[in-house]
Amino acid sequence: MITVLRIGHRPERDKRITTHVALVARAFGADRILIDTRDPDLERNFESTCERWGGKVTIKSGTKHREAMKSFDGQIVHLTMYGEELHKAIATLDPAKDTMIVVGAEKVPREVYELSTINVSVGNQPHSEVAALAIFLYTFHGQKMPEFVDGKMKIVPDPRGKTVMELETPDD
Amino acid sequence: MITVLRIGHRPERDKRITTHVALVARAFGADRILIDTRDPDLERNFESTCERWGGKVTIKSGTKHREAMKSFDGQIVHLTMYGEELHKAIATLDPAKDTMIVVGAEKVPREVYELSTINVSVGNQPHSEVAALAIFLYTFHGQKMPEFVDGKMKIVPDPRGKTVMELETPDD
Repeated sequence: MITVLRIGHRPERDKRITTHVALVARAFGADRILIDTRDPDLERNFESTCERWGGKVTIKSGTKHREAMKSFDGQIVHLTMYGEELHKAIATLDPAKDTMIVVGAEKVPREVYELSTINVSVGNQPHSEVAALAIFLYTFHGQKMPEFVDGKMKIVPDPRGKTVMELETPDD
Repeated sequence: MITVLRIGHRPERDKRITTHVALVARAFGADRILIDTRDPDLERNFESTCERWGGKVTIKSGTKHREAMKSFDGQIVHLTMYGEELHKAIATLDPAKDTMIVVGAEKVPREVYELSTINVSVGNQPHSEVAALAIFLYTFHGQKMPEFVDGKMKIVPDPRGKTVMELETPDD
């Protein structure tokens, strides 16, 4: 079970970046998304994506990061450009354990570093928490992404154009 | 030589996402960033990151995508959730050739599909152009990220906290 915890979310400023974080979490195999600041709009948008495209990924905003981290029974990975090199870090993690991945915005409180099992970097250069989360999950899962079989539509990979299958469901 | 072309950029709405695209392009080994809509603020911010952290990555906004794609002498990869599966697509590309990677925002004109050598997807699920660019470049480069040796500061990977080296330069 993989939880992604997004901290430092400011609904006015971060709606799009946090939406990208949530969609990446889902597409790269997380099961649960927690966001510190309450943002019902963002929850609704994410849930509507899940309805269309499938998957049982849950989202909940308004979760205090300290409590969530302290009460988490498993390993906690904090993604930061200051952390341990990705592959070295992953070698120390147990893929069978419940894992929480903490993704910060601009300023991350010191205690987040301390409450984490390990701080991990995807390159020690400034880039993007969206990219860091994608690369971490993709690498942690052996370069595999989950399939979603219960969506209302499905894309057939196409090198030249768009091929979308609409899957009928009884209540459509 | 790798060029990233960001299309559909709206300075009011997309400044942060396009900034993430540009920072990911730099951190994952692109040489040049082109953005369709003129945005001098975004250029300045990106250039100031390059000054602090190093690298000779250039950025230019106000480039028409049609002309840029038509006049490009090399292979053009358009990242889209509708495209060919990543690993199959990369197997058809020549790593020695100049490569342009086109990253769209919400709506991408049909001609972009047609002007590209190949349309490539990082999973056929909705997520993020920032994540797609990072995964594409990381995979294309054999999971290596470039080192930047001419920055004013350098991070030493640290599993527990922050270790930053300030590198003195004669004009500091």
